[in-house]
Parts: sequence; C-alpha cells; structure tokens
Amino acid sequence: MKALRAIGVTILLLIGGIACAWAEEPTPMSNKEAIELVQTHANYLWTLVAACLVFFMQAGFAMVETGFTRAKNAVNIMMKNLMDFSLGSIAFWAVGFGLMFGASGTGWFGTSGFFFSDFAPDGDPWVLAFWMFQAVFAATAATIVSGAMAERTKFVGYLIYSVIVSALIYPVFGSWAWGGLFNGGGWLEELGFIDFAGSTVVHSVGGWAALAGAIVLGPRLGKYGKDGSVKPIMGHSMTLAALGVFILWLGWFGFNPGSTTTADKSIAMIFVNTNLAAAAGAVAAMITSWIKFGKPEVGMSLNGVLAGLVAITAGCANVMPGSAVFIGAVAGLLVVGSVLFFDRIKIDDPVGAVSVHGVNGAWGTLAAGLFNMNGVTLSIIGVQLLGIMACFVWTFPLAFGLFKLIDRIVGLRVSPEEELEGLDLAEHGGTAYPDFGLSTHGGMTPIGAEILQRSTAGVTMPIKQA
Amino acid sequence: MKALRAIGVTILLLIGGIACAWAEEPTPMSNKEAIELVQTHANYLWTLVAACLVFFMQAGFAMVETGFTRAKNAVNIMMKNLMDFSLGSIAFWAVGFGLMFGASGTGWFGTSGFFFSDFAPDGDPWVLAFWMFQAVFAATAATIVSGAMAERTKFVGYLIYSVIVSALIYPVFGSWAWGGLFNGGGWLEELGFIDFAGSTVVHSVGGWAALAGAIVLGPRLGKYGKDGSVKPIMGHSMTLAALGVFILWLGWFGFNPGSTTTADKSIAMIFVNTNLAAAAGAVAAMITSWIKFGKPEVGMSLNGVLAGLVAITAGCANVMPGSAVFIGAVAGLLVVGSVLFFDRIKIDDPVGAVSVHGVNGAWGTLAAGLFNMNGVTLSIIGVQLLGIMACFVWTFPLAFGLFKLIDRIVGLRVSPEEELEGLDLAEHGGTAYPDFGLSTHGGMTPIGAEILQRSTAGVTMPIKQA
Amino acid sequence: MKALRAIGVTILLLIGGIACAWAEEPTPMSNKEAIELVQTHANYLWTLVAACLVFFMQAGFAMVETGFTRAKNAVNIMMKNLMDFSLGSIAFWAVGFGLMFGASGTGWFGTSGFFFSDFAPDGDPWVLAFWMFQAVFAATAATIVSGAMAERTKFVGYLIYSVIVSALIYPVFGSWAWGGLFNGGGWLEELGFIDFAGSTVVHSVGGWAALAGAIVLGPRLGKYGKDGSVKPIMGHSMTLAALGVFILWLGWFGFNPGSTTTADKSIAMIFVNTNLAAAAGAVAAMITSWIKFGKPEVGMSLNGVLAGLVAITAGCANVMPGSAVFIGAVAGLLVVGSVLFFDRIKIDDPVGAVSVHGVNGAWGTLAAGLFNMNGVTLSIIGVQLLGIMACFVWTFPLAFGLFKLIDRIVGLRVSPEEELEGLDLAEHGGTAYPDFGLSTHGGMTPIGAEILQRSTAGVTMPIKQA
Repeated sequence: MKALRAIGVTILLLIGGIACAWAEEPTPMSNKEAIELVQTHANYLWTLVAACLVFFMQAGFAMVETGFTRAKNAVNIMMKNLMDFSLGSIAFWAVGFGLMFGASGTGWFGTSGFFFSDFAPDGDPWVLAFWMFQAVFAATAATIVSGAMAERTKFVGYLIYSVIVSALIYPVFGSWAWGGLFNGGGWLEELGFIDFAGSTVVHSVGGWAALAGAIVLGPRLGKYGKDGSVKPIMGHSMTLAALGVFILWLGWFGFNPGSTTTADKSIAMIFVNTNLAAAAGAVAAMITSWIKFGKPEVGMSLNGVLAGLVAITAGCANVMPGSAVFIGAVAGLLVVGSVLFFDRIKIDDPVGAVSVHGVNGAWGTLAAGLFNMNGVTLSIIGVQLLGIMACFVWTFPLAFGLFKLIDRIVGLRVSPEEELEGLDLAEHGGTAYPDFGLSTHGGMTPIGAEILQRSTAGVTMPIKQA
Repeated sequence: MKALRAIGVTILLLIGGIACAWAEEPTPMSNKEAIELVQTHANYLWTLVAACLVFFMQAGFAMVETGFTRAKNAVNIMMKNLMDFSLGSIAFWAVGFGLMFGASGTGWFGTSGFFFSDFAPDGDPWVLAFWMFQAVFAATAATIVSGAMAERTKFVGYLIYSVIVSALIYPVFGSWAWGGLFNGGGWLEELGFIDFAGSTVVHSVGGWAALAGAIVLGPRLGKYGKDGSVKPIMGHSMTLAALGVFILWLGWFGFNPGSTTTADKSIAMIFVNTNLAAAAGAVAAMITSWIKFGKPEVGMSLNGVLAGLVAITAGCANVMPGSAVFIGAVAGLLVVGSVLFFDRIKIDDPVGAVSVHGVNGAWGTLAAGLFNMNGVTLSIIGVQLLGIMACFVWTFPLAFGLFKLIDRIVGLRVSPEEELEGLDLAEHGGTAYPDFGLSTHGGMTPIGAEILQRSTAGVTMPIKQA
Repeated sequence: MKALRAIGVTILLLIGGIACAWAEEPTPMSNKEAIELVQTHANYLWTLVAACLVFFMQAGFAMVETGFTRAKNAVNIMMKNLMDFSLGSIAFWAVGFGLMFGASGTGWFGTSGFFFSDFAPDGDPWVLAFWMFQAVFAATAATIVSGAMAERTKFVGYLIYSVIVSALIYPVFGSWAWGGLFNGGGWLEELGFIDFAGSTVVHSVGGWAALAGAIVLGPRLGKYGKDGSVKPIMGHSMTLAALGVFILWLGWFGFNPGSTTTADKSIAMIFVNTNLAAAAGAVAAMITSWIKFGKPEVGMSLNGVLAGLVAITAGCANVMPGSAVFIGAVAGLLVVGSVLFFDRIKIDDPVGAVSVHGVNGAWGTLAAGLFNMNGVTLSIIGVQLLGIMACFVWTFPLAFGLFKLIDRIVGLRVSPEEELEGLDLAEHGGTAYPDFGLSTHGGMTPIGAEILQRSTAGVTMPIKQA
C-alpha cells in the first residue's frame, strides 16, 4: 500500500505547509493553520470511523429482523437489508444528498450536488467525508421499514420503496431539520428544533413509513384469529437477534457521538448518555415484561435497548446523564406498551419497528426539549412538538400513498401460497438453512397446514417476536 | 445532526482559543495550549473508540457462552449477558465508579463521585470519557462469571450477583491497583504492582468469582457419572462460538491498547503483543489438544486464543513481542491442562471461564513481572505474587459468601425439572430456535430422558465444551 | 490501567517536549515538532484502528465460508480460519515481514527484520504499527484460499500451505509492489504499478493460489454428475453468510482507507469509492442473477458486494466516485459470469473465491489504470497488465507445485468416507451443531447415501453456494 511512502509524503506536505512559516521567520498564522490542519485530520478520522460504526448497524438490523422472524423468510430479509443499503447508497449519491444538503436558498430542499457534481478532484474532500456519514444515516431510515413489513412484502415492491425513501422522503425532511447551512435555512432548524442525531429525522421517519407499510400490507396470515385473538409468531433465532442488538448498540456509538462530525471533548457526554439510556431501556423493558407476562421476556428486553437508544438520539448532546437514564427507562416502558397496543389494534409489525423507532423517536424528541440542560421553555417544547408532528404529516401520508401506488402497479404483497411457503423459496429460489430440518411451523409445511396449526396452538406468551 | 454547523462552531472555538494569541501578538503558550488541545481531542477519540471495542466484547462473550452451551439455554444466556451489561452500567454509574476512582485519601476505596455527582455541565468531560472506558471494563468482570454458572443458575439470583460484582467486588479491588491517583494511593499500586490492563484486576476477579459460583452451584445434571466418569455436554453452535472469539480478539485491541487512554506511540507495541499472544495461545492449545486427544479440538483452540489474550493483558505494555509469544503459548498450554484439572475435581465450568480468566489472569500477572523489559527483580516478582494472592483472597471468599447468601434468600439454582427442560422455557417462557427441530439431547425431551441418555452415551471425546 | 497516570505522564512529556521551546524563548522548530508529533499520534491511531477493522475481516471470511458450505464442515472451517490467522501472524512476524519490507537493496525481497530483530525497546515503534497493519493483510491472502478448498482439504495440509503463503508467497510478491522504500526499489513499484490497497497484491495472490488448490484437490464428491451436470451444494446458513459479508464490507473500510497509514483528508474519497463500488457490485450481481436465473439470488448478490470491494481496492485512491460505481458494477457482472464459467469447466470453488478475488483482483487492477483520475496512458495500462500477469506467473505455478508437494508428503485431500461424513467428525472429533437434527444431506447420513441423493435431486437453481 505504499504506506511508508504515503506517510512520508504526508509529513512532507505537513512540514511543507508549516515550513514556509519556519524556514525564514515564524509567522504565527502558519502555526495556527498547521494546528487546525491536524485537528481537521482528527475530524475526518472521527467522522469516518463513526460512519463505519453506523454502517455496521446494517448488520445489526439484519440480525435483529431475521432473528425475530421465521427461518423460511431469512434469505429474503438478508436480501432486503443488503439491497436497501446498496441501492440506498447509489440513490443517496445520485439524488438524496443533493436534496438534503445541496444549496438552494429555499429552506425546503436543496437543488444541487447530485452525483457529487460539486466535487472536483482538487476540491475539499470534506463533502465526501460528510456524504459517507450521511449515506449510512439515510440507509438506516430505509432499513427500519423493512422490519415492519417483514415476511409478506414482494421483493420488487420493496426495492422501489427503498430507493424512494433514501432518495426523497428522508432527504427532504432531513433538509428541514439539518440542511440549514446549505439550503438557506431549513425551516425547522430555524425555529430551534433540537434533534441532535435524529430521533425524529431518522427514526420517526423510518417508523412512520413502517406504520404506513404495515397498514397497507395488512397482517401476516394467521397472526390474528377470527375470534380476535393475537397469535404469537415466534422469531427463529434469539441468539442472532441478541447479536444484532449488541451490534446496533455498538453502531449507536457512531450514530450519536459521530453526529458531532468533529473530534472534540463533547463526544464523551454523548457516549455516556447513549450507553446509560440503552441500559435503562433494557432494564425497564425487562421489568415491565416481567410484571406483565410473569417472566422476563427476551424480545421485549432487546427492544428495550433499541427504544432507549432511539429515545436518547435527539437529546444526547444536551441532556445530563441522569436525564438519559430517565429517558431510556421511559422508552423501555413505552416500547412494551406500544407493541401491545399495535397488536391490539391489529397492526402487525413483526419486529416492533413502529414502537421502537416511531413512538420512541417522538418521545425522545419531546424529551430533548423537556430535559434540555440549558433550560426549558414553553417555546422549546412547542417547537419540539411541531417537529414531531411535521415528521408524521410529511412521512405517513406520503409513504401510505407510495405503498398504495406500488401495490397497484407491481403488487406489494406476495400471494398467500408464497407467504405460507416462505419468501425465500418463492422470491429467491433458495432457503437459508437447507441442512437443518425445520419443524412444522417452519417454511416447509403444506399450504394451509400452518394456518390451522397456528390457530389451534394454545401458546400462552402473548408477544414473542416483539 | 447539524454537522457542519457543529464543525464550524468547533473550529471557531479552536480558532478562538488560538486567535487570542495571534490576533495581537503571538504568545507561545497559546500555541502550546492549542497543540495540547488537539492532542487531548485525540485522546478522547482513542479512549472512546477503544471503549466501543471493549463494549463489543459483550457480544463476543454472549456468542462464546451460548455457542459452548446447549440450545435450550440460549435465551437465558442472551438475557444474562444483556442484563449484566445493562444493570452493570447503571450500578457502575451509581456506585462502582465512585468506589473505584472517587477521592478518599484512604488508599482502600473512593467515597465520592457517585451518580457523576462531581460532574457539572460546564466541567471537564474527561471524567465521562474515562467512566465510559471503565464501565465496559466493569461489565467484563461480571460477564466472565456467567459462563461458569451457565445452564443452571436462577435468573433473579444472577441479576443480584451481577450488580454486586459491578458495584462492589470489582471496583474495590480495582481501586487498590488503579485508583491511586484518586484515592490517595491504592496500596497495590503504591508497591509497584504491574497490571497494565487487568489480567488480575478484571480477569482474575471474574475468574475467581466464577470459581466460587461453580462450586456453590454444583455441576450440571448428568455432567459427572456416578462411576466418576466425565460426560461431555456439547455446545450447540461452534460457528457462533468462533464468531464470539473473533469478536473478543477484536475487542481486546480496545481493552489492552485502550488502557493507555492516550493516543500516542506506545499503543503500537501493545497491539502487537496482544495479537502475538493470542495467536500463540491458539496454536499452543491446538497442538496440546492434538497430542492429548488425537485431534485438533475446536473448543480448546478457541479457548487458547482467550487464554493468550488474558495472559498478555497485564504485561502488554512492558514486555517485548518475543516474550508475548512465549506468554501466549504457555497460556494456551495452561488452559488445556486447567480445563482438564477442574473437570477431574468435578467443578463444572461449561465454558472454561475459570481456566481462561482466573488461572491465566494469574499467569499473565506473574509473567508481566518475569518478562518485564525494564528488568526483573525479586521484589517485582514478590509484588506480582502478592497482587495475585490479594485478588484471590478478596474475591473468592466474598463471592462464595455472596452466592451462599443469594442461595439462601432467593435460590441460586433452578429446579432439576427446569434444568432438564431448559432455562429458556422455565425462566423466560420461550425458546431460542422454535423453527428448528432440536435433537433428543436438546431442550425438548421429557424430563428424565436426558439424564438417562447422557449417562449411557459412550462419547469418546472428553471435553467438547471447554 | 493507570489511565489517568498514563495520560498525565503523556501530557507532561508532550508539554516537556514543547516546553523547552516556550520556557525561555519560542523557537518555531519546536512548535513544528510538537504539531508533527500530534499528527504522528493520529497516524498511529488511524493505522491501528484500521488494522482492527481488517483483522475483523477474519470473522467475516469465516462466516461467509461456513455460511456457503455445509453444516457438517463448519468446525473445520472455523479451525482453518482461526489457524491461518494465528499461524500466519507468527509466520509473518518470524519471516514474512522481513521478506516483504526488510532492507536488502535487491528490489526482489528483503533480507532483514525477521522476528522484529531491528526493533529495540527504545526504538521507533512505527515498525510495530506498520507490522500490525501488514500482518492482517498477509492473513487475508491466506484466508482467501481456504474458501476454494473448503469441504475436502486435510487439516494438516492446510496448515502447512497456510504458513507458506503468509511467510513466503505473499511477502515476496508484496515486496515487488510495495517494498520499494525498504528493499531498494521493488521492481513493479519502480515501473509505476498502481495497486493502492492490494487488488493484485493481496486478492489476486489469494485468488490464484485458491485456483491452484481447487484444481489439485478436484471437485467435491457429487458436485459434477457423470452426465456433465452441475449439482448445487447448498450452503448451510445464509444468515451467517450475509453477516460475514457485512463484516467484510466494514473491514474493507480499514483495508482501503487504512492503506494510507496516515490520518489525512485523502481517506474520505477512499471511503466513498469503497462504499459505492461495493453497493454497485451488489446491485449488478443481483440484477445479473435475476436475468440469468429468473430470481434475485442471495449467494450471487453477496458475492457481488465482495467483487465490488476487491475491484476498487487497487484504484480506490486514484479514481473518481463515478468511476468507482462503474468499476463495482462491472465486478458484480463479472463475478456471476466467472462463477458460472468455473463451474462449466468443472473447477469446484465452493464459495467463489477464485472469481471474487482472482478475477476481480485482475479487473480492479486494470481499472485502476483505465480510470486513473490523473490521466491514462498506454504505458500505465501496460504496467498494470504486467503486474497482473506477474502475479499469476509468480503465484499459480508456485502454489500448484506446493499443493502437489503437500499432497505427496502428507496428503492434501481427506478420504471419500471422511468427506461424506463431514470433516468435523473426521478431522476434529466433534460437530458444530449437536443439538440440531441435520436433514439427510447433512453430515450424518450413511456413507454413499449422499452421492445417491445428490445425483437424483432435481434441483433447478444452478448455483446456490457461489
């Protein structure tokens, strides 16, 4: 890798940059510039390492989603997670980044910078570092939706929707809250909206789009009995689900502190808040499930972690650690209640994505105002509520219409036969675990047997896959 | 994330901090301060990135533990690993950190800083960065124990014990070895005890507590035959176990080099030593198992990696790379012998935690003295031995008493019926792999069938799950 | 970890280093030195964090390989991946690093620095940081081969070969392309060969050695029918394979940008190029498989990611992002065609390693010349082609001879009985998933049943495990 040569050249350049100051007579500005250059290098380093961590969340989402759903759909879930990031990266390069951060002067969205058109080989590469960090964020928003739509969505429909979220729905809202420096003042940012790393911008956008998708699709076959009963559909691997949650927790250390995009002291408190909220979310969800179901339930506890992480995302840089514990604990409680609520109103969300990302994104955004360590005013709370509502009003109807449109044009849901057989065989021509004998409620049962089996199974734990 | 704004503000602040020096006339102190500030930022960055890596070890431990144990207990192991980190984080924030690093002047433990009580919003956030790195260490000590107590411990008992390790047992010993700057001279540190990243402070504390737990609990049902035979109980996923070991190896690159908590040149040798010791441990354990059992055994080889890593932890910053290879190789040999030894004396440690962390923590601490690249004296060896003994004398009786107490109050072990059925159903109301047919020695057999099956199985490989 | 003490000392040293300049009168050189020292610390930090990411690729390769192969060989694959890194680390410390980067003056290979013989306790530790980064590269080359030789190679033969790749085959070629600063001008480097992070140096070396191994071994039993048909042998876990690909994608963010071994602005474009090429590779391979097989196939899509990553490795620092998209897309198309081609000529490569690493390594190296953003000349293309050919001419015959030699001395392939039973039982005395009932084409069938079953199974998807 020509490593030593590279390092030599860099040091020479650095020396060169400084040497002009030292060679003849020291001009302090040059010291200043040299010091700033090293700090800039540290900023690149941190932003890009944080982007690595956020990228790895894709693996975490894939493991959580597949762990919480059935073996017969595992290939499909891998393909969806792989493709929303891959297509999303291309779409965010081509369109999304320009809409979100391009210059325009309107305050509504950007209109330049598509395909890196504003980057020259000798230009400032910061735009590339910043894009990298933003691209992994955009993909997160798209990935969230796939969880709520798991086990019944047509692959081609998913691809279409996924590109549109990364290229349009997410970037436009993001422009309102984060694009101000570029587009002449995103209107929410102008009002003082606090959403440091995206409880609303990323997670609620994903969560409300997920809600729209789950409603348009309808529940999985056999999920809700004709007698109004809720049938648990167990996930096929709690070890992979737990691994996924640990990976997401790790990734959030890039998501939240990385949102500084600078290597400075402020990242320490963001790390601590992120960790404490996640821990408190896990504990609160475990206790809630224990009280509610009589046993400490693993799905709820894992979702408690994610709920805590989503909730602290807005306020991670402006609440004290004690507040982070409280915010996380409320999130852990809230996620259990929310999962049960959506099941009661028969909206089938296999992994609890709406509750984790939508509901707790809203809670976290409100909490960022309520626990603001620089003081809270009615006006701050008002702006936070406005932002929360704006997100829902922008995302939900648009996503709902989009899913309806996709449904009409290419079809959004697989056939009942394909759903029962499993999407892996139907959509991808293979299975995830050919060496293992799957038990009867897996993917291999004759069509129809599964519905029967499910509706007669007297399982007592209400929500396993939450 | 208001990213560009943030970066802009930071650079302005940095410039501001420097500009006062340049604006009028350059005062060299300001250059010095500016340079130190950038170095400080690099220190934050490294310490927190290292904390990420150490955090990820939680996932590694979870995968190793579940991989080395049976499918019917996988949910329980996920829950324990999730909760010891979550409760441990809260406990270390509330109590442990203050005991370990709070000011006191006694040299025995700290008495301030509980709940970050000494951190103000405008204070130096280094305490938060340092806490983050320490918190992931504290959780490691607690996690180690869960391996030795796997497949038979009551969940509620585990939670209680886990909090007490993170809040009390680990921090007090840690204060003796590492808290000196804070508490007025931890007595072991005063004597010159070498334990750079915690072979004794973290791993032996965990290992000896694990030994106490394994003794108080007694062996798993069917593990030791009435005729004195040792029955292997196979782990349910060697792929997850191997993944876990790779994750732990990765995490150790945060654990050891991160313990500098500064970004400087010294981390290079620590990286190299850590890697070489792990590699040598793997090779030595593989060869030993090959000679002993006639085949290169995977469980032993994986534990050889961990043994090498534990052993180099104390001396990673003060032995030469050649010594690291030797220390790791001895660790690999030692772990095989130790696992066989504990099985011979009928102490059932499903994952080999006592051998990996307890025994090799002691070996590594001794080796840090023996191979000290700055020279070795009898006095150094004496202090190392004193530290090793102090750890055992502090940890083992305290943990033993604690487990006995928990046993009396809430019960430490599940009932034989629950153990045979698997802790997942009994304790958490679910199973990890509902789509897969588990074979007869899995979690679904009628009560009693398993004991029978185990005691008549003529398996030849003595130790699979080691 | 004596953390605060350490940081205190470091800051004191830093201040000390600067103070001499400030104490009396400021000499600008000292400011310069202090600034350079902080930049050097950042370089250490980046190089070693990148090494962590590249190390983690070992876990990624292990998951991809085992996911794409059968459950009955999973232990064997874990052992091979563990051991090629462990033995490889020791071998690269003892021999390989000296051959690759030691001083010699010949331009063909180095002849000093074995066992870190040129490192003194008070010497510059950069050699250690650099070794760490290089060691994880060397292990990558060795690991690649294990994929093509999976499911039929004798363990002891694998160990021998693995050491020789890390100690000899890879380092000598590496010396030609990257060792110039050290050995007095590696001849390829002298000619201006562009291979920034090793499309040829690492991946093609691995790929062509893999090709040699696959040819010498011959195909797996039952892979090619007597009637010329190709029988798919399905991998046992698409979730682990996908996890592995995500891990590899993550690791490549260390592999490519880390090859700067300096923390500067240039890493941003390398990150973006790496990500876009991977994404384009995934999309192109998915579309190609969709057209070819009628369904978007998961194995091809996953290999498309890896193909894109391999292909951008050579040119990541000197092509524009738009070119990276094109290079990755071609790689995705190429990998599907190449996998089908090798199957047609009956070279059995269970994971597609030759196509991913060999073929796309060559494509990427050519593309680095074709899309060079500083302009392309016939001479540049000529040198790129020369490097590509030199790699094949050096690696393939040498590896072929080596495998033939190993075959003669200790045997390269297991017996048919062992292959049918699975290498886990035969070679390691255990199985990866004892709790799960494996279906009939798993490891537990009577000898012979499998061949029968495979040759009569009318599976329609041609290549699952590609």
